[in-house]
Amino acid sequence: MVEPPRGWQMREKPATLFRRFEFDRYAATRQFLDDLAALAEELGMHPQNINFGATYVNVTLEASVPGEGIGPAELAFAERVNALIRAEG
Amino acid sequence: MVEPPRGWQMREKPATLFRRFEFDRYAATRQFLDDLAALAEELGMHPQNINFGATYVNVTLEASVPGEGIGPAELAFAERVNALIRAEG
Repeated sequence: MVEPPRGWQMREKPATLFRRFEFDRYAATRQFLDDLAALAEELGMHPQNINFGATYVNVTLEASVPGEGIGPAELAFAERVNALIRAEG
Repeated sequence: MVEPPRGWQMREKPATLFRRFEFDRYAATRQFLDDLAALAEELGMHPQNINFGATYVNVTLEASVPGEGIGPAELAFAERVNALIRAEG
């Protein structure tokens, strides 16, 4: 059993990693969304779904190989997303 | 009964306007998301929810006054969103 990065939930059928991020104002939400888009472009790997409102962003990563479980690429992506939050303070 | 702008669906309980936009590649999705964020900031009015993946964006606008129906502000916002698509063409 793979251990998810801090704050992320492992979900099954299909295998995904999910985390909800909350912000105190829209400007912080927007900054996170922009940083997340830059990260996705850097890694050439796009979240399966991003769901957001003014003060929250839900991120879902799916297994890159259909039918396979969450692998090292998804775990590394999730860790990098966590690092965005730390960098933004 | 208010008529929704082209492509938008009126939904009830709570009253919302919904439209799904599809794109042929991530770069077009990203352009639309950036333009939508700029529009929201210009109008000081943020969609209740935006839900997107690599090639689609679902936009939900809620009535700005809780308990009220969709009003002129939401209809005008939806028309402006439609105009983004035409401008990006």
